[in-house]
Amino acid sequence: MQFDAPLALQSGASIRGYSLAYETYGTLDADRSNAVLICHALNASHHVAGVYAGQDKSEGWWDTMIGPGKPVDTDRFFVIGVNNLGSCFGSTGPMHVNPDTGRVYGADFPVVTVEDWVHAQARLLDGLGIRKLAAVMGGSLGGMQALSWTLQYPERVRHAVVVASAPNLTAENIAFNEVARRAIVTDPDFHGGHFYEHGVVPKRGLRIARMVGHITYLSDDVMNEKFGRQLREGMDLRYTTQDIEFQIESYLRYQGDKFSEYFDANTYLLITRALDYFDPAARHGGSLTRALAVARAKFLLVSFTTDWRFSPKRSREIVKALLDNGRDVSYAEIDAPHGHDAFLLEDPRYLSLVRSYFDRIAAESVAAAADTLADLPAGAVL
Amino acid sequence: MQFDAPLALQSGASIRGYSLAYETYGTLDADRSNAVLICHALNASHHVAGVYAGQDKSEGWWDTMIGPGKPVDTDRFFVIGVNNLGSCFGSTGPMHVNPDTGRVYGADFPVVTVEDWVHAQARLLDGLGIRKLAAVMGGSLGGMQALSWTLQYPERVRHAVVVASAPNLTAENIAFNEVARRAIVTDPDFHGGHFYEHGVVPKRGLRIARMVGHITYLSDDVMNEKFGRQLREGMDLRYTTQDIEFQIESYLRYQGDKFSEYFDANTYLLITRALDYFDPAARHGGSLTRALAVARAKFLLVSFTTDWRFSPKRSREIVKALLDNGRDVSYAEIDAPHGHDAFLLEDPRYLSLVRSYFDRIAAESVAAAADTLADLPAGAVL
Repeated sequence: MQFDAPLALQSGASIRGYSLAYETYGTLDADRSNAVLICHALNASHHVAGVYAGQDKSEGWWDTMIGPGKPVDTDRFFVIGVNNLGSCFGSTGPMHVNPDTGRVYGADFPVVTVEDWVHAQARLLDGLGIRKLAAVMGGSLGGMQALSWTLQYPERVRHAVVVASAPNLTAENIAFNEVARRAIVTDPDFHGGHFYEHGVVPKRGLRIARMVGHITYLSDDVMNEKFGRQLREGMDLRYTTQDIEFQIESYLRYQGDKFSEYFDANTYLLITRALDYFDPAARHGGSLTRALAVARAKFLLVSFTTDWRFSPKRSREIVKALLDNGRDVSYAEIDAPHGHDAFLLEDPRYLSLVRSYFDRIAAESVAAAADTLADLPAGAVL
Repeated sequence: MQFDAPLALQSGASIRGYSLAYETYGTLDADRSNAVLICHALNASHHVAGVYAGQDKSEGWWDTMIGPGKPVDTDRFFVIGVNNLGSCFGSTGPMHVNPDTGRVYGADFPVVTVEDWVHAQARLLDGLGIRKLAAVMGGSLGGMQALSWTLQYPERVRHAVVVASAPNLTAENIAFNEVARRAIVTDPDFHGGHFYEHGVVPKRGLRIARMVGHITYLSDDVMNEKFGRQLREGMDLRYTTQDIEFQIESYLRYQGDKFSEYFDANTYLLITRALDYFDPAARHGGSLTRALAVARAKFLLVSFTTDWRFSPKRSREIVKALLDNGRDVSYAEIDAPHGHDAFLLEDPRYLSLVRSYFDRIAAESVAAAADTLADLPAGAVL
C-alpha cells in the first residue's frame, strides 16, 4: 500500500511517499470485526503464513501458529501481516530512494520507533477499512508493537497477544545490540551506511551480528543438547584457532553466512535501535502501571521459562502493571527448553493455549459486531 | 626464565627457545614448602600483586587478594606469578621471532592448551628449585590450570584453589569465544594473523571481542544497577543508530577501545582456544569423576551466584567429582551481585574465606616441611 501523505516520526523527522508490504489471509467479515494484525520481530516480514504457489520452502515465519485450522485460524479470522517501515522485505527502507533527494536513503533513512511502526500500521488498517482489531499479536519486538497498539490506539484493539516480550530492554539487551551494531558499522564495507553505491555489503559485520543474536535466542540447555562439545563429524581435534573445531561453531558460522546474504545492514541498525528505544514507562516517570493505564484491551501474555533474553520476569512486569489497572489479563509461563526462540516453535501447550484464547475472541466477536459498526466515525476512511 | 630444551605440546608440535616472564613475592622458606603459584585468565599476566616503583597505577591484577597481610599473605608465602606461553605480556608469544624460521610467529604460533601451560609452569618451578607447591590458585581459566595441576602433577600440589571456574566450556561459552574470534579473524587488518609485518592491528575485531567478553563477565543485575537504561549524561534521545545513546554503549566502547590498544589478536585466539579445549573428562569417556581420580591435593572451590559464564553449577560438578573420589574439598558459593567478574573484586566474605584457607595451609606447611624435603629426588634441578 502506497502512502503519499507524510508520516510524522517520533524523532521529529517525517517520511513521505513510502509503501508498506502486507499480506492478508482469510476473509474480512461483513462487520469487519475479525481482523487480526500480526507484528514481526527483527528478522521477519509480512509473510506470516502459508507458502507461495510453486515455492515449497516459502513457509511464512509464523506458519505453525497461523493458517486454516491453526491456533490463529484463517478460516475464522482475517489476518494481516505487514512489513515494517525501514525493514528490507518489501516496505520502504534504507535501500530505497528518498523522494526528497533522489538518492538511496542508506544510513539517512530516518530512525523509526515501535510507536512509529504502530502509527504506520494504523494507516494501513485505515486503508483496509478496519477500524477495530479483534486482536493484535506479536512475539519479542512484535509483542512490543502489540503492547504499544493498546496504548496508542486503545479504542482500536479488543485483544492484545504479547509473546516472549518485555516492557523495555535491559542494559544487557542493549549491550548485545550495540555489539552487533558496532560489528556492522566498523566493517570497512559499511561505508558509513552508504555501501549500496560502492557495490558492496558489510557481510563481516552482519555475520557477527547474527552470531551474537543467535546465541541470545537459544537457551544454554538447548545449545548443550543440540551441540554440546561435539566436534565436527568424524574429526579429531585439529588444534586450530581459525578453522572450525566444534559443531556449535559450524552452526553459528552457517547462520551468520546465510543472514549476511539477504539482510540489510542499515535495517539491522534501525530495528535494534527501535528495540533499545521502546520504553513506554519512561514517559510516565518510570511507572509501567501509569503507562499502561490508558489500555482498554484484554490481554494474553506468554513467556518461556528458558528465555534469558526476555525472561518470564519481564512479562510478569507487564502482567502486574495491567492488573494494577484492573485489566483483563491471561498469562502463561510455558516450561519450554528452547529459550527465546520458543515463541516461533511448535510446542503443543503453547499452541493450544493460543488456540483457546482465539476461540474466546471468536465467540466475543459475534457479540461485539454491533459495537464495532457503531464505533466507526462518519467519514472514516474505508 | 629462558628455556632452551623443546617443550612438547599437546597438539604434537613443540616449541623451543622460549622464555616465561614471572614475578615472585615474599621469601621462599629454607624447606621450600611455602610456594604458591598463581595462574592467570585471559587478560592478565605474571604481575599479580603490588605496584612497580614510581608507577602508582600499576597494581597487579589480583592485588586485592595477594600481598603483605592480604588473604594470600606474601609475608608468609612465596608467591609466583607467571605469564603463560602465547600470552602478550612478556612470555614468548605470537609477536616474537620463531627461532626455527627467523620470522615473527604471528598466526603460526603453536596452539597451546591448559595442559601445555601447566607443563611449562612446572619447568619454571624446576628452575626455581620448587618441587612441591603449598598451593596452586587461579580464577576462571586460571582455575582450570589449578585443577589441571592436580591431575598432571598430583604429587607436586598440596592445595588447589579453584575460583569461578568450570570443568569445561558449554556450547554457549564456546559460541561467545567463536564470535570474538570471527570478529578478529575477519577484520581486514588481521591479514591471516600476520598483521605485524603490515604495520597494522586488527583493532575493530579486538574491540568487538572485548565488548562481547565484557557482557559475559558481568551479571544482568549489576549491569542494570550500574547502567540501566541511562542515557549519556545530560542528553535527550538523539535518534541515532551509529552514535552513543546509552551509558552501557559508552562503557562497552571504552572497554573495547582500551583493550584493542594493548592486547595481541593472535594471543586472543590462542587463549580462547585453550579455554575451548580444556576438558579433562573427555579422556575418561566423559566421566569427570574418573578424570579427577588421580588428584591428591586438597581443594578449595569458590563460585559466585550471579556468574552466568561459569555458574555455581559448574563448580559443583567439580566438587561432586572430587567427593566421589574421597578428596578433601571445601566449597563456597558466594552470593555476590557482580557476575563472573566477582572473582577479581573485593568481597569481604570471599576474601576472608580465602584468608582462612591459607591460614590452614600455613599451619600445615610447617608440619609438611620434612615431607617436602624427603620428596625431592636426588639430582632434582634446583
